Parts: sequence; C-alpha cells; structure tokens
Amino acid sequence: MIIVLKPRISRKEEHAVLREIRKLGYATHVMRGVARTVIGAIGDELTHANLETLLAQFPQAVESVTPIQKRYKLVSREAHPANSTIRVREHVIGGKKLHVMAGPCSVESEDQLLRTAEAVKAAGATILRGGAFKPRTSPYEFQGLGEKGLKLLAKARRVTGLAVITELLSENHAALVAEYADIIQIGARNAQNFQLLIAAAGTGKPVLLKRGLSMKIEEWLLAGEYVLAHENPNLMFCERGIRTFETYTRNTLDLSAVPIIKRESHCPVVIDPSQGAGRADLVTTLCQGAVAMGADALLIEVHPNPAEAWSDGAQQLSLDRFAQLMKELQPFIQAAGRK
Amino acid sequence: MIIVLKPRISRKEEHAVLREIRKLGYATHVMRGVARTVIGAIGDELTHANLETLLAQFPQAVESVTPIQKRYKLVSREAHPANSTIRVREHVIGGKKLHVMAGPCSVESEDQLLRTAEAVKAAGATILRGGAFKPRTSPYEFQGLGEKGLKLLAKARRVTGLAVITELLSENHAALVAEYADIIQIGARNAQNFQLLIAAAGTGKPVLLKRGLSMKIEEWLLAGEYVLAHENPNLMFCERGIRTFETYTRNTLDLSAVPIIKRESHCPVVIDPSQGAGRADLVTTLCQGAVAMGADALLIEVHPNPAEAWSDGAQQLSLDRFAQLMKELQPFIQAAGRK
Amino acid sequence: MIIVLKPRISRKEEHAVLREIRKLGYATHVMRGVARTVIGAIGDELTHANLETLLAQFPQAVESVTPIQKRYKLVSREAHPANSTIRVREHVIGGKKLHVMAGPCSVESEDQLLRTAEAVKAAGATILRGGAFKPRTSPYEFQGLGEKGLKLLAKARRVTGLAVITELLSENHAALVAEYADIIQIGARNAQNFQLLIAAAGTGKPVLLKRGLSMKIEEWLLAGEYVLAHENPNLMFCERGIRTFETYTRNTLDLSAVPIIKRESHCPVVIDPSQGAGRADLVTTLCQGAVAMGADALLIEVHPNPAEAWSDGAQQLSLDRFAQLMKELQPFIQAAGRK
Amino acid sequence: MIIVLKPRISRKEEHAVLREIRKLGYATHVMRGVARTVIGAIGDELTHANLETLLAQFPQAVESVTPIQKRYKLVSREAHPANSTIRVREHVIGGKKLHVMAGPCSVESEDQLLRTAEAVKAAGATILRGGAFKPRTSPYEFQGLGEKGLKLLAKARRVTGLAVITELLSENHAALVAEYADIIQIGARNAQNFQLLIAAAGTGKPVLLKRGLSMKIEEWLLAGEYVLAHENPNLMFCERGIRTFETYTRNTLDLSAVPIIKRESHCPVVIDPSQGAGRADLVTTLCQGAVAMGADALLIEVHPNPAEAWSDGAQQLSLDRFAQLMKELQPFIQAAGRK
Repeated sequence: MIIVLKPRISRKEEHAVLREIRKLGYATHVMRGVARTVIGAIGDELTHANLETLLAQFPQAVESVTPIQKRYKLVSREAHPANSTIRVREHVIGGKKLHVMAGPCSVESEDQLLRTAEAVKAAGATILRGGAFKPRTSPYEFQGLGEKGLKLLAKARRVTGLAVITELLSENHAALVAEYADIIQIGARNAQNFQLLIAAAGTGKPVLLKRGLSMKIEEWLLAGEYVLAHENPNLMFCERGIRTFETYTRNTLDLSAVPIIKRESHCPVVIDPSQGAGRADLVTTLCQGAVAMGADALLIEVHPNPAEAWSDGAQQLSLDRFAQLMKELQPFIQAAGRK
Repeated sequence: MIIVLKPRISRKEEHAVLREIRKLGYATHVMRGVARTVIGAIGDELTHANLETLLAQFPQAVESVTPIQKRYKLVSREAHPANSTIRVREHVIGGKKLHVMAGPCSVESEDQLLRTAEAVKAAGATILRGGAFKPRTSPYEFQGLGEKGLKLLAKARRVTGLAVITELLSENHAALVAEYADIIQIGARNAQNFQLLIAAAGTGKPVLLKRGLSMKIEEWLLAGEYVLAHENPNLMFCERGIRTFETYTRNTLDLSAVPIIKRESHCPVVIDPSQGAGRADLVTTLCQGAVAMGADALLIEVHPNPAEAWSDGAQQLSLDRFAQLMKELQPFIQAAGRK
Repeated sequence: MIIVLKPRISRKEEHAVLREIRKLGYATHVMRGVARTVIGAIGDELTHANLETLLAQFPQAVESVTPIQKRYKLVSREAHPANSTIRVREHVIGGKKLHVMAGPCSVESEDQLLRTAEAVKAAGATILRGGAFKPRTSPYEFQGLGEKGLKLLAKARRVTGLAVITELLSENHAALVAEYADIIQIGARNAQNFQLLIAAAGTGKPVLLKRGLSMKIEEWLLAGEYVLAHENPNLMFCERGIRTFETYTRNTLDLSAVPIIKRESHCPVVIDPSQGAGRADLVTTLCQGAVAMGADALLIEVHPNPAEAWSDGAQQLSLDRFAQLMKELQPFIQAAGRK
Repeated sequence: MIIVLKPRISRKEEHAVLREIRKLGYATHVMRGVARTVIGAIGDELTHANLETLLAQFPQAVESVTPIQKRYKLVSREAHPANSTIRVREHVIGGKKLHVMAGPCSVESEDQLLRTAEAVKAAGATILRGGAFKPRTSPYEFQGLGEKGLKLLAKARRVTGLAVITELLSENHAALVAEYADIIQIGARNAQNFQLLIAAAGTGKPVLLKRGLSMKIEEWLLAGEYVLAHENPNLMFCERGIRTFETYTRNTLDLSAVPIIKRESHCPVVIDPSQGAGRADLVTTLCQGAVAMGADALLIEVHPNPAEAWSDGAQQLSLDRFAQLMKELQPFIQAAGRK
C-alpha cells in the first residue's frame, strides 16, 4: 500500500505511523518528495490488514492510503490468461459461437412458454430464458409461478432441445432450481447477496452473474470471485444496465463493460439489452453494438404478446420482432468474426 | 394511469388503444389537447394490469404511460397519518427521545465488545450495534464471528442493559439472529433481497431497513412495504448514503431523506453517518445535521481502537471521540425539541 | 399538463385549483378515478405558464404536475421527419458515408499537427480535430496556443485538404474561431452555456454540441434547440461519456444515445470514444460499437507521441494504432451499410 | 506521482519506464513489493508533466499512475489556515454571523422585487438575491429582464439597505453586472466556464461559485482556484445540489459539502436549499441541517406569489413562509454558536 503523509508533520509523528505499519506486518520504505513524504508498505495486501485504518488513527499525519494490489484473483486474467469457456449441454459459451438466450421475462403458462420457445429456437436461439421466481419491486406484483414455472421450463427443454436459464432468488431454492436449470441466473438486486452467490456456486451449475444497479467493475469482479472461490469455475458476467441520472431509458447499458471484463477477466461476457434499455424499441440496436464489441452471448426478453405480459411488457419483443432482430444481427456477427 | 398519444395518429389507431385499455379492465376518458390527445385510464392501479405494455404494443401511437397512484400503501402516511413508534425493550423509537445506536462495525472479541458497550452506554447510547454476520465485498475479508458474535452481543446486553441491533444476512439465520437481537438490521446490499425481508418480517422483531446504494425513495418505501405486508408493523428506515460520482466520501449521505420519509411515511427514520461518509472525521458534523433535520435515531460505528479494527476502521470513532460527539450533539437535540 | 390531486381534499380546494389553472389560460378537464382525481389542463404548454407552481401554491391539494408536450421543436423528428445532412466543404455528414474526425487533443506545434494530419488523412479520416483554446480543470494546466493554434489548423487544412473542427470557449472568440474552423465544437463543460451556443449559432458554421457530463437527453436536445432557434440549422450531437459512479473509465460512454437521438431528432450523431473512455486501450472497441449502432461520425484523439502530449495523453492513440483502428473498423462499417 | 508496474514485466521494460520518467524531469525511487513493483516519481507535480501518459506509452508495463499532490493551492487550507472572511458593504461573510441571502428566482417587476426585498429584510435577511440574466434549459422560457432587472436590484438596495447578489451569464456583461451587484454569482451550469470565472474575478467583486451538477469536490475547488489565481481573494463556495439517480427531489443537496469545504479550504460556504430540493416544502428542514453543520450563509428563493412566478415557482417560498422559516431557524443558529 502507498501511504501519503501530510506536509509539515514532525519526525515523531512520522515514526509513529511507521511503527504502526510495521506492527501490522508490512516492511516500510520511505520516499521524500518535493511536497509530500510517501511510505511504501510492502507485504501481501490480500493477507495483511488494510491500512486505511491509519486515516482514523493518525488524522493529523496521514493524508491518503492507496492499495496497489488488485483484490480479485481467481476471476482475473492474471490467474488464467486464456478465455474460459463454459459447457452448457451441447453448447460452449465463450468460444467462437455467439449464443442468444431468449424467452419471456416471466413464465406465465405452458402455451405462452412453448410458443415462445419454439419461435426463438426457430430464429436461432440456443438457450431459453424465463423467470419462475421473480424479484418484484412491490409486494403486490406477480411473484412468479415458482416450481410450476420450473417444470414448464423443463418441458420446453424436452420439446425444443433448448438449454434453460432461470433466476435463483433464495438460498433455500438452490437445490430445486438446480434440478431444472442448465444455467443459474443471479439478478442485479442480489448481485451482492453473497450467501446466495455461495449457494449458487454450490449447485455446480454454471452461474450467470448480473451486474448490480450501481456496482463498480471491481465490486462485480469480486462478487464473481465468491463463485470461483467456492469451487465453481463456470461463471459468466452479464451487463444489464447501470443506474444513472438519465431517465429516457430505465437503465444506462454500459457496453464498455464488454472490453473491460475481457481485459480484466477470463470469464465470458453476456449483454442483456432488454433490462438495459427497458424499452423494446432500442433492443435491436443495442444488440448490434454488443455483438460488434465482442459479447459472447445476448440475453433477450421475448413474449408472444408483450402487451399482455405479466411483468415488464414494455421491454419484451414479440416473436416476429425477435426473428427480425436475429436476421439483422447476422452482418454484425460476421463482422465480429463469430458464428 | 395517464396515456399520452403521439400527434397525428389515426382515429383507428386511437380506437385500438382504447379497446386494449378497456380490455384490461379500466374505464377510459379522452381529453383532446392542443398538441396531444390524452387518455385517462380509470381503475385501481394496484389491482389492474400495468399499462406500460401499451408502449410495446402500440409503438407508433403511444408516447408515454404514467401511473398516478402511489404503489405503497401500508408504509404511507395516507394509511397511518400519525407517526409510528416502535417499542424496543424499555425504549420507544419515533417518539420524543432521540436514540443513539452505537458500537463496532464487527464484533471481534468479548473484550472489544464489552469495552465499547460500557463506553457508549456511559456516553448516553441506548442501543448497541455490532455485526456478527458481515457482508464483505471480497470473499477474502473477515466474514464475522457468526453465532459466537451473537452470544457476545447478548452478554453485552446483560452486562450493560443496552438493547441490541445486528444484521441479518441469510434467510437461514433468521430464527437464530432473532433469538439474540432486539432489532434486525437489513443492510444496503440486501435492501431488495425480498426473501430476506420476508424472513426478517416473520421473526416479529423490529426491522431496520437500510437504503440500497442506488435505491430511489419509492423503491425503498416499497421494500419496506414487504415488511408491513408480511404483518410486521415495526419498521424503521435508515439512510446510509447513496452512490454518486463523488469520491471524496465513500457515499453521499442524503440527509433530505429525513424530511422526505417523514412526509411520505409514518415510520421512524434513522441516519447512519459512519457508512454515509466512510470517514470518521465527518461523523460529528453529519450527526448535527441529522438531528437538526428531525432524525429519530443515529447509528454510529465506535471501536476501542479503530486502527486495529477488522473491518471499516477508517470510519469508526474511538471511545473518546464518541463521548465528545455526544456532548457536542446536546445543543442540537434541544434545538430540535428532542430529548 | 396533468395535475393529480391528493386524496380526500374538499370540493372547495378542488375549485380553487381549477380556478387558478383557468386563470393561467388553460381549459380544464376533470377525471375522477378510483383513488385520485386528475385534472387535464388543456393549452399549448410552450406558450402558457408552467403549472408546476401549483405544487407550491396548493401543497395540501396538489400531488403532482406532469407536462405532456415535448419542450423541443426544431430539433425534433416531428418537425423534420427525414435525417438532416450537413455540408462541410466537400463532405456530407449524416448521409451514407461514415466520417472520422481525428487529430490531437491540443494543437502543440506545426510539426506535431502536420504529422498527425497527414497520417490520419492517409488512414481515411476526412476531418482534422485539434484544440487551440483548451478548457482545463486547473488554471495551472496548458490552456492552448490560441490564435496561433488556429493558424496551424488552417495550414494543415491547406496541406492535406482535411476539413477542420475546433472548440469555441468564449463568446468573444466566436468570429475568430469561425474564420478558421469548418465546424465549431462546443465542449461538454459549456453544453449549457447558452450565451456561447447563441454565439456559435451566429457564426453560421456547423456546430457540434457535446453532451454535458450529467445532461439528460431532453436537456441536450433543448441546448441544441438554442442553435436551431438562432437560425443555424447545421447541428450535430456528440456523445462523449456521462458521469457515473464507475471509476474504471473516466466517463461512461452512453452508446444508447445513438439510437435515442436518431429517434427523437433529425440531426446527425457523433461519438467521441476518446473522452468517453479516457483510455486509449478501449477506443477501438468503442468505435466498433458506435459504428454498428448507427453513428454518423467518430471523433478520435490521435497524437504522434501520446506519452509526450501536453494534455490527455492517456486517451490519445498513436498514428500506427489509429491506422490499425481504421482497418479494423471496415467490416463494421460495411455491416452497418455505410461507406 | 506513484507508478505501479504490472507483474512479470522484464527488467528492460522497467528501465524504459524509468528512463521516460527521468526524461520528464522527475527523480525516481523504486520499491519492490510482494506482488508489484512501485516507482515513486519525485518532483513538483504542479510544474512537471503529468505522468498519466505512461499508461498510453507503456500499456504492457504500467498498471496505474497516481498523483499525490493536491492540485489546488490558493483555495486550500494549507495556503491559508485561518477562515477567510469577505466584506460585502457593511457585512462580513464567513465570520460569526450567519447571513441569509433571499429574494426571487427572477426579477420580474419593481413591485414584485420591492415587496420581496422589504419582507426579507424585515425577517432578517441581509442580502437580496434576484436573477436579471437567467440561464434557461429551453430557449422558449423567460430569459430575464437584463439591465432593467439590474436597475431594479439597485433600487431595492437603495430602499432597503440590503446588499445585492445576482448571476453573471456572459463575459460581455461582467462590467455591467459588477456595476450593480455586491456579489457576483456563477451558476451551476457555468461552474466550469473558465472564461466566465476569469471575467468575474476581474471585476474585483466577491464571487459566489455554485457547484456544478456533477462536479467533484476537487473540480469545484479547482474552479475556485481560477478566481483566486486571477487575483480576486473574495470567493464563496455554494452547494446547490448534485445530480443523482433520485427523482423525488430535483437535485440531491450534498450537505456533507459543508464540512468538506471547511476542511479543504478557507473560503466561506453557502447552502442553496431552494435549488437543492426544487421543492418549497423541504426548504426549512434543509436550512436547519445546513446551519447545524456550519454553513456561513443560506441562499433562499422567496416570491410574493410563487404560483405566478415566471421561473421555478415550485421551489420559491412565500413571504409568510420565509418569515416563519427565519423564526424556526433561531434555535439552530444558537446551537451552532452563530448569530
């Protein structure tokens, strides 16, 4: 860590700070600059105490404390320079093929789900999405069909051959959801629900971790670290829009997360333009950008009749528009060198 | 709901929109303005479908859809015009007395906890805070003492008579935490972990709900609604800073939440300046503001030796500084007409 | 405008509100809903008083006031359904050809500028960027060469045939800058400096308006409206990143601004990935996304030796990397159906 | 500056980085840590080149570059440990007395202004605010009375003895505004319009600098540095709310700016709760907080008839409510040890 001292402190104060740093197990190295004295505290920051406490202990002497090590290990490119790939049934995510995960926001009925599954399969999707347990801002909104929804997803998989991704909301449902899902989704609101991340990791299924509404890249990588540290190597990061001051869109889709995650981590990156924009009319254009920028997969909400959807109707595509989107994406998939 | 139509659409399109609104159970009312036609959809928005789906269904005809009802009921002032008060052992929160909840970020040892408890009690605090289960950004950081920490909190209560508040992290710990705690805290990262809110409500203990890092006031009230809707009337809202672009402080403490929550809700409001600033040197001034603005209680991190704290040392006050803070608050408590 | 009344107000209070609305020149239309009464105020919102004052005048009776008209006219698609194109010397911006504006952050010397101009021209750029007047966060940083810089830009134009874009910082320089520039740039910090917008409009030159750091789409369109309302039809909008909580990048490039501006306005859209990311290593990927999403032009910082740049070295590309970027963009330009 | 190198780079790469740093005039100091090598670059950062360019020049070798000096000098407490006070006619801002600046958002007429001035004077205000030149989001909104407004302010000063603060919008009006105003206000939208700051400094009048909508504390201090560096020592900082995701209030008033500016700078701090909240009903409570936290002055919008104000009616107080506010503030002014 780098500790910057305030100007004009006494040698005695400086020694007190140095003593404390050494007491916490670091070696020290003093550099006297023109305007400030800087102390380098040498030691492994992941195993030693965080020195930010010096700010509280020596408020008159210490101006700033800056860690220099990255706090994530297993998710980082340093730990695993090549891209990771994740096997989901017969598919490989993170390889040359771009995958499209599509389906309704919520599973509502057998008819709704099967019609959607068949249509998205025909249009080229490989994975079926659909919420059985739904986190809703208000307790008075539809909370999902629960296990019945999971069974419908499994039936849709039997009928169409699509793999299934669905959200896990509660530690207590981990085994149940894992029984039906091929990929377990952790939603934005639970992105720092670490108990849930540990439970998801424990199922052994691949985990798709959405970015929290106001999660910094570093925090997102560290939340992913919980999955890998609990011995599940099959992690995908999914950008779904962050919260900003802008109100034209529900969220601001941060597409720069694609190259950033690719630089910092070896895990595949997925883009969810439906949540990102909250408006169906922007989805196609956002998908084009995501593909051009190197996303490994897309997660798109599709509904046979968006106007009658039980949740988030404004952002779901109709079956026709989804089919058209898949066609319009082709030139960009090729330009990106994907299949 | 109010549906604004785009200019220059045909009567046929307008009729299609009206038909759909009526099909969803609303009565309709058309107003023709100078530049736009507006439809009023009349019906209870809490029990009818959300019409935002019209945006997806009629993208050429519908410009905007605006709900007019508030989505929260039980937490609202409309439902309960008087201030709610919450009994915690012999104390009443939300009444004339300002309460101070103080203690370490994490429970670390019997010595650390008892020294802190005795000091904060002597300085005038009525409730002891301390984390036994800690949500940590990195899996490599100290995760709390767990049940051992809860037992130490109970011991500190026996010794000092202070009531105890501690955080609940997992649905599976709800019964355990409720056995030891007088108030159950839901942290910012779990503020929209609805399963956890339901589990906390189910314990019957008072619940302190922190505001999520990027939670709008309306979402916060709706998260609180989960507690009241699950038949636990003893809810407090705790502002602890929101995430903004500013980096001088860890978070931006939104003190305007005090008068806003007081206006919208009957539940008590608590301010956490320690998390809010992330810096011990701002805590006293933030407490002065909070008290002047009408907060019912303060939640303050205090540690016998902040520099050696196992978590968040930079924001914890020493025992001496806490005692001084309590003195410096007195004139403001009186100015605010509190005790 | 739509005025929502609070529940349980008296008829007398309702009448007082209605009287006030009519006094301000609107016709009124009352809708009685299940939970609320709603008043439609009918009249042209651009010429009548804003009714938000009702909130202050009738705090007990009025819950909310919502305008329904868009506040921008001349920049809107409603006013001009076809795309606008802007002629800049022999070029047309907003047509089929994607334009690249490239050059150094600051003009530093004849050698630096000419080397850059020749290189970016050879790689396919059509417009040369370069700052002669620089807005700098600190008064101690390099503030630009001023008129000498403008003369160097003109010389580079003579030598290479590139058109020139440069920033206007002061009303008092408007005539001077217009003498040398083909496009006048208004920077993010001045995006709501309305006097400067009026001065820029008055030069008759095309204006490129960057989005302010925390400007909502509507505010940006309204700032553009100042240019068109002052009789200059040649306006481009340039997204250059907004300010969010994320610190990995200097700003968060909001690529969804491309389809949104295309939807709301007829003016061309330009993307500046250099400012957007603040890091050279993300520029190529952001350009790929921008092109795929329909940007009309790119604005890219290029320097013969970024490490010795007098400003913003971390985000400038070397000449070689720029040439490579232009090659890597080709497949995406074709996929987007551009030249 | 502190330069952190990437792990596993060669000695040759390290030497190239060291050579470049020395070439830019810094002495170097190498520290070899457990996971990283760190270079201290020793030299005055205000006069030497910014080393962030190393990131672009050595992308494979350099991980981060961190300045350690503060970039502001004249506004800092280090430069001037005691509080600065500013003389405005017979008043002193920044001393023991809390000042209240009150008046309408816009000057509309002699009657409106004089009625307001007399009422706020009677209630205890010492300074009259009122906009003669108004920056408006839309070109179709009222832009102020201009010089006629300035003359009315001067008349109100003659009649009441109140000092006058008004906003400067254009460099070209600097002499004109200075002729009438006792304090020159720079608005939030122009907070980084450096040419305007220089023009305001040049008038020799005290300058009140509002914080920009998304301005970091450091940027705000640096904008203030422009005023002091142009030889005008009479600067006040005015917090007026920052832009966040919250929509309940127009802005989020960051009251923690009071203790932060007091810590970092010697200049007085003013709070504007009217702009901060955008709602009259929160103004009194926000003032209580501001006073308790140590603000030197308040800037409050007051109008004889807010419902008929030509701008921002929703946030202006009536004359009666202002008088009541002044009474309700008394206990907090005393508690804060002010007059």
